Amino acid sequence: MYKDLVINRIVVAVDGSKFSDKAFEYGCELSTMRNIPLIIINVVEEYATVGHSILPELKKSSKRMLNKYKGKAESLDIRNTRAIQCIGNAAEEILKIANSKNIQTLVIGNKGKYGTPKDMLGGTSYKLVHYSNCTVAVVK
Amino acid sequence: MYKDLVINRIVVAVDGSKFSDKAFEYGCELSTMRNIPLIIINVVEEYATVGHSILPELKKSSKRMLNKYKGKAESLDIRNTRAIQCIGNAAEEILKIANSKNIQTLVIGNKGKYGTPKDMLGGTSYKLVHYSNCTVAVVK
Repeated sequence: MYKDLVINRIVVAVDGSKFSDKAFEYGCELSTMRNIPLIIINVVEEYATVGHSILPELKKSSKRMLNKYKGKAESLDIRNTRAIQCIGNAAEEILKIANSKNIQTLVIGNKGKYGTPKDMLGGTSYKLVHYSNCTVAVVK
Repeated sequence: MYKDLVINRIVVAVDGSKFSDKAFEYGCELSTMRNIPLIIINVVEEYATVGHSILPELKKSSKRMLNKYKGKAESLDIRNTRAIQCIGNAAEEILKIANSKNIQTLVIGNKGKYGTPKDMLGGTSYKLVHYSNCTVAVVK
């Protein structure tokens, strides 16, 4: 086999959509096949305010979502699971982590929660495929 | 684990470039992890003629390339390896196979033999990510 294993650390980006659920499932399968660490990322994006900032609520909701995914990964015996919450632009924040060292595969859905049925590839997914330095698995 | 395994049949597209070599390596690793079939595709594209058709020579060269990749896969104990040569437009021909039933993951390089150093994603890779119905792993 190859000296340098090409798949040895996985990041999966989730947003609670059914597309990211499929990406999560794919990431878990890659992870369990090789018993390798899985990092789960959700980015909190504050698109609008309602007179006051809704960031605290968005962060709480994101935390609940990440805990749900993390619990599911742990139930699949993925030992080394880490959940990361970022705040900012989704593509930028995911790229910061994906382009840091030791990440070999970024797993994403082909579109996210704001995707429309006709979208072949959502805006964030498009940016990630283009600008990621690591391998990107676009799950459909 | 999941009832329906998400990774169970892999297609890797090759064109002899260093980018497709990396994609091939990634495809082999996915395949060996799960002992699942690997299909290797090369598309012969006749861009130009030289007074007469050079298709016969291009086909021979493609056949040699496919045999090399197939031999390498077999040396890695991938039992069920199939090499397919297509003729026509690379994206169209790869999509025909990737979008046929039972293919779960298409593995491609981020660019091909005509890619320039600054390309983030080559034209064929771009089309495949957009129009493939199955998961696409863009190897970088």
